[in-house]
Amino acid sequence: MPEFNPELRKDPISGRWVIISSARAQRPEAPEPRREEETPEARARCPFCYGREDQTPPEIFTIRINGESANSPGWLTRVVPNKFPAFGIFPEISLRRVGMFQMATGYGAHEVAIESPEHDVYLEQQPLSQIARIVDTWWERHVDLERDRKLKYVLLFKNHGKAAGASLTHPHGQIIATTVIPDVLKSKLLNAKEHFVNGEGCIWCRQIEQLFYYENKIYNPDGSVLVAIQQRDRVVAENAKFVAYIPFAARMPYEIHILPKLHQYSFIQTSPEERLELAKMLKLVLMKIYKLLGNPPYNFYIHSAPNLNITPRTGDYGTIREDFHWHIEILVRTTIWAGFEQGSGIYINPLNPTDAARYLAETEIDQ
Amino acid sequence: MPEFNPELRKDPISGRWVIISSARAQRPEAPEPRREEETPEARARCPFCYGREDQTPPEIFTIRINGESANSPGWLTRVVPNKFPAFGIFPEISLRRVGMFQMATGYGAHEVAIESPEHDVYLEQQPLSQIARIVDTWWERHVDLERDRKLKYVLLFKNHGKAAGASLTHPHGQIIATTVIPDVLKSKLLNAKEHFVNGEGCIWCRQIEQLFYYENKIYNPDGSVLVAIQQRDRVVAENAKFVAYIPFAARMPYEIHILPKLHQYSFIQTSPEERLELAKMLKLVLMKIYKLLGNPPYNFYIHSAPNLNITPRTGDYGTIREDFHWHIEILVRTTIWAGFEQGSGIYINPLNPTDAARYLAETEIDQ
Repeated sequence: MPEFNPELRKDPISGRWVIISSARAQRPEAPEPRREEETPEARARCPFCYGREDQTPPEIFTIRINGESANSPGWLTRVVPNKFPAFGIFPEISLRRVGMFQMATGYGAHEVAIESPEHDVYLEQQPLSQIARIVDTWWERHVDLERDRKLKYVLLFKNHGKAAGASLTHPHGQIIATTVIPDVLKSKLLNAKEHFVNGEGCIWCRQIEQLFYYENKIYNPDGSVLVAIQQRDRVVAENAKFVAYIPFAARMPYEIHILPKLHQYSFIQTSPEERLELAKMLKLVLMKIYKLLGNPPYNFYIHSAPNLNITPRTGDYGTIREDFHWHIEILVRTTIWAGFEQGSGIYINPLNPTDAARYLAETEIDQ
Repeated sequence: MPEFNPELRKDPISGRWVIISSARAQRPEAPEPRREEETPEARARCPFCYGREDQTPPEIFTIRINGESANSPGWLTRVVPNKFPAFGIFPEISLRRVGMFQMATGYGAHEVAIESPEHDVYLEQQPLSQIARIVDTWWERHVDLERDRKLKYVLLFKNHGKAAGASLTHPHGQIIATTVIPDVLKSKLLNAKEHFVNGEGCIWCRQIEQLFYYENKIYNPDGSVLVAIQQRDRVVAENAKFVAYIPFAARMPYEIHILPKLHQYSFIQTSPEERLELAKMLKLVLMKIYKLLGNPPYNFYIHSAPNLNITPRTGDYGTIREDFHWHIEILVRTTIWAGFEQGSGIYINPLNPTDAARYLAETEIDQ
């Protein structure tokens, strides 16, 4: 890439503008893994540890070694209601207007998916078989929550590290199900619909094609090359079923998207074999992040289509089965979104996505 | 307010949903002011200190005690180009398409407004006369940048504290001017236009009325009161020209908006007397935050209408002069936006806005 710096890039799915300003970018020097600080008291009190099952509300779902009784040790993964839920299950959904304002009771579900009986292990450090169980646990909860026809959207997410919003260090993810389609999804659904209606098919399928099969060039009037985007230049990793890459308009240096290579509209469509491949991909990508950046804080979330039990096959938000492609977005918190990002909705990314992908791709992990 | 918890609230201007979940809310106990850590080397190198004027690019604007020469000591406020700009002044704006992606050169301005020759003082700790000079400095730069008809939007913002994205501790704000209207503004302009076109006038003027003059009640079928929103229950402070309040659907506990009481579409419309009142209000509100929360990190930004030299009086984004009301939004970083907020665009606020406003209103500041 020639000097086109700083450069404004537009993300075709969210419509967001990003400023790629790589004047300050440097290759990270594989720092010592950061240790999360935790007081001995907090550790002793951890409600997610083995033998402390009575410190959480009763479990909703569990994968167990054998037939031990519920809410006792012997589990491998465990899902419980969040003790401080953002939503509750109210008898009815109540929407009210107060003057010019709208308010509603927060009907929905808020669950915690505990990823290990062990306190001091990270998701990505566990054996593949255990990561596969965690992914299966997410899938089971997602499928079950979609049975509630009042719930329009199920969002799985994970916060790793205090600076990424994790209040407990014991490894866990969270599942929230809501009666509204969240705004971030609405934008994606509308842009995906427009792309599809224009006859260009699934916008995520096109991105994968662009990533693997096209070399894009822009020429100067004299025939020399001004900009050349190489094939696979933003690919981080690939396996039989999934691809991980840095998006063209990444909002931060290490924003990584993981997509199934073949079109699927929802995580609930995955087969057990596909979920095993997903577990492999998650382990690989998260270990690369751990090694390259020294255990940085991160967030990720899964974006699937809304609950198809209640969303019509075609409608405001598109055909959904054909135009939405489920995916995971990982945001590694190496930069801080400050006054400019909050006040504008434009993001400043100090590292070129091509460089970020190369650094990660070159980070070797023993598997 | 009765128990309606957790409660979903919709912000009428941005359209954002917020979950007010005050199960965990506690009154802060006026902690010791946090000190920002800084190495002696970083301090000795600070390019914004007196006598180090040659460490920055040449100044764009300055308020001086008397007629000393430019780029030398004697200044009270000083504006210089950002050494690592997110934008540059390119000879032409170049928009290109690469495959399915759009990119452009980042034409625009990125300036730093240094708030004091002193290193160890905060904006809000300075005498009122100096804060008034800072506000005047912002105004001078805003007016000047709008003369460039290629620039559609001028955004003034400030990051205080490392956790809020401030990379240098010497007190300073920033000014970015762009060739695009930022997305956050587009949403506001469109919602404000709709409100105006519906015959309801300026949506910010209506919020001020609602705050001061209305008591809103919702009744149960038996005639008892279910919800009562008191007059002024979200007001933090008020003076002759400005009001500061917690918005109905605040995204975090201490999100505070400052508005001129009388309708103005842009900060550039303010008179010197109004800017003095604004300086008083900023000092008061920021000192309340400092005292109540122990010098927390914060961001704020000013949202004015787009550059009226180039934006038509009526158009896609409304009449602008009549329907947009300029304002400051302060975000105190006491919570972290994590996977849920990023993945959904819905915010979880663990403190009821009425409580937050009361805590701040009751925090007394000697003036």
